[in-house]
Amino acid sequence: MSFYAAPIARLIEEFEKLPGIGHKTAQRLAFYVLNSPKEKAEKLANAIVDAKAKIKYCRVCGNLTDLDLCAVCNSQKRDASLICVVEDPRDVVAMERIKEFKGLYHVLHGVISPMDGVGPEDIRIKELLERIQDGSVKEVIVATNPNIEGEATAMYISKLLKPLGIKITRIAHGIPVGGDLEYADEVTLSKALEGRREI
Amino acid sequence: MSFYAAPIARLIEEFEKLPGIGHKTAQRLAFYVLNSPKEKAEKLANAIVDAKAKIKYCRVCGNLTDLDLCAVCNSQKRDASLICVVEDPRDVVAMERIKEFKGLYHVLHGVISPMDGVGPEDIRIKELLERIQDGSVKEVIVATNPNIEGEATAMYISKLLKPLGIKITRIAHGIPVGGDLEYADEVTLSKALEGRREI
Repeated sequence: MSFYAAPIARLIEEFEKLPGIGHKTAQRLAFYVLNSPKEKAEKLANAIVDAKAKIKYCRVCGNLTDLDLCAVCNSQKRDASLICVVEDPRDVVAMERIKEFKGLYHVLHGVISPMDGVGPEDIRIKELLERIQDGSVKEVIVATNPNIEGEATAMYISKLLKPLGIKITRIAHGIPVGGDLEYADEVTLSKALEGRREI
Repeated sequence: MSFYAAPIARLIEEFEKLPGIGHKTAQRLAFYVLNSPKEKAEKLANAIVDAKAKIKYCRVCGNLTDLDLCAVCNSQKRDASLICVVEDPRDVVAMERIKEFKGLYHVLHGVISPMDGVGPEDIRIKELLERIQDGSVKEVIVATNPNIEGEATAMYISKLLKPLGIKITRIAHGIPVGGDLEYADEVTLSKALEGRREI
């Protein structure tokens, strides 16, 4: 038996379904909502419904957008000859934050992962191939995550696109800035050594 | 400039307003909602609006309920001669969880706190006084939190009700079960000593 009135129990339950939100936190959030003015609670509810209703994938790159083309694809200032391939729309945000990349993106919405039954046809690789058909793309930077699936996906894309005469690059792996050699795992350290450059 | 489409930015912003939810967590929650099926997102939104719309204070004790009387006040099995005074509806849940208290509750919705400009007239003390007018209440247990405001409120209620011939008790303070004497603060330890009982 729940000690809460049904609508409270239901709200706690819904909050608990969110990632990283346990029962205690869900309770805290529910009581916060109950103590807020009605307008504030409705603003949160509307933001959820609204985002879900309005957000779709960019027709070209697959990034999240409320328009037909995302802000990056729609910009006249971006270099259309350079495409950065990422796994997830969040990775686009991470890249944009450094304010240095001036090319376009291609969001795969996943990585090749045979263990999870995800093959090349399940992620947006076909769409990437279509984008480079007109010959305007000179370089594809593969910025999938540096783990087994990310590397496999990078390799697959490289094998697929290289025959078309496109330069395929991979983001560098190594010790993160501010990181500590002592605490770096062996693979990272070996990658850092492998990727050493003259100074 | 935000790197997110407006509806995403708004959703992140709304999540960030929740207590204990920082920017990173808000982002994670927003992307979770965007990746969920529409029905799931709407269930969360509806639970928020619904709880806010349906939940009100119990006419008698001030606990949260979706009915006129809360489940405790409405029960025939509870002892109406015993009232436990708590600060917050969450405290009712905490008390109910131990499954031992068989009386009714009275939720103050706050504590006396001159620092925050909260006086006795700002919390539900008048309503408590009204409840005991008919002489059926024999004991009032004051279970406000053991801090300055909670103690002051307990003292105020005691001074107010004692002249009416009602037994006023305070929950015990002491070392929590499983706690460690070594790590107990001095006030708690002194309260534990003061409240010692023969064994």
